[in-house]
Amino acid sequence: MYQIIHRVGIAASPGEVYKALTTDEGLSTWWASDTSGAGEVGSIIQFRFNGEGPDFEVIELVTDSIVHWRHSGNMPEAWMGTEVSFRLQADEDQTYVLFLHENWKQSSDFMGHCSTKWAVFMLSLKQALETGMGRPHPHDIHIDHDE
Amino acid sequence: MYQIIHRVGIAASPGEVYKALTTDEGLSTWWASDTSGAGEVGSIIQFRFNGEGPDFEVIELVTDSIVHWRHSGNMPEAWMGTEVSFRLQADEDQTYVLFLHENWKQSSDFMGHCSTKWAVFMLSLKQALETGMGRPHPHDIHIDHDE
Repeated sequence: MYQIIHRVGIAASPGEVYKALTTDEGLSTWWASDTSGAGEVGSIIQFRFNGEGPDFEVIELVTDSIVHWRHSGNMPEAWMGTEVSFRLQADEDQTYVLFLHENWKQSSDFMGHCSTKWAVFMLSLKQALETGMGRPHPHDIHIDHDE
Repeated sequence: MYQIIHRVGIAASPGEVYKALTTDEGLSTWWASDTSGAGEVGSIIQFRFNGEGPDFEVIELVTDSIVHWRHSGNMPEAWMGTEVSFRLQADEDQTYVLFLHENWKQSSDFMGHCSTKWAVFMLSLKQALETGMGRPHPHDIHIDHDE
């Protein structure tokens, strides 16, 4: 199994970061402007990029600490069986976010694309919380000329 | 073993990308402004960030296609035994770069930091080649407040 891993430090409280990861309003500031369904464990979040997937089920929440999703329904084939988690760690003047997208069956060009793209969105999350203006899709940074 | 993977598409020829990965002049436009020693297989490239490592030995070069380095000497402990490679693939209007930093013994906060930071530098490589102005250290994007 393969994983994508990232880590950023954000000048915001764990509570502020947690809100940005667990509410439609928060998620739409940094990943997909078109986000719906975020809520408690068991809820299905629908992220839409030009009208298409992915969906994730919320499978674990620990307030201000852990956010854990599993693929659900509408999903690129390579993402089937994968899980995404965010682990928050408070430091003196920032909150660290350790991001994992785990259980990839194989390493591939597409996995490389997704890893770089997740980095772009982690920086968008940081920017959203620190400046009030993230770069969610469709305002995201493009990493190649096919996007 | 764990790996970091990234992929970007750059509006430049494979020859231009290859030059940016195999010469002091090219490498200093996107990773570390203070770079020396780049050359043929067997050469030791010294990248300096505020006067400190890392060094990499060039272990494989295929013109306009593959650049492969192995850690050498001065290096963060977690990077010992790791290898970095860039694989270029020409497409219609861009050159794809598949980046790998392989053979990590464990997944860690530091690995997450490095993965996000490599993404920042892959975007710097893209920017350097497409606009003539990358963001090599010390002009790189900071991903936390300890850098």
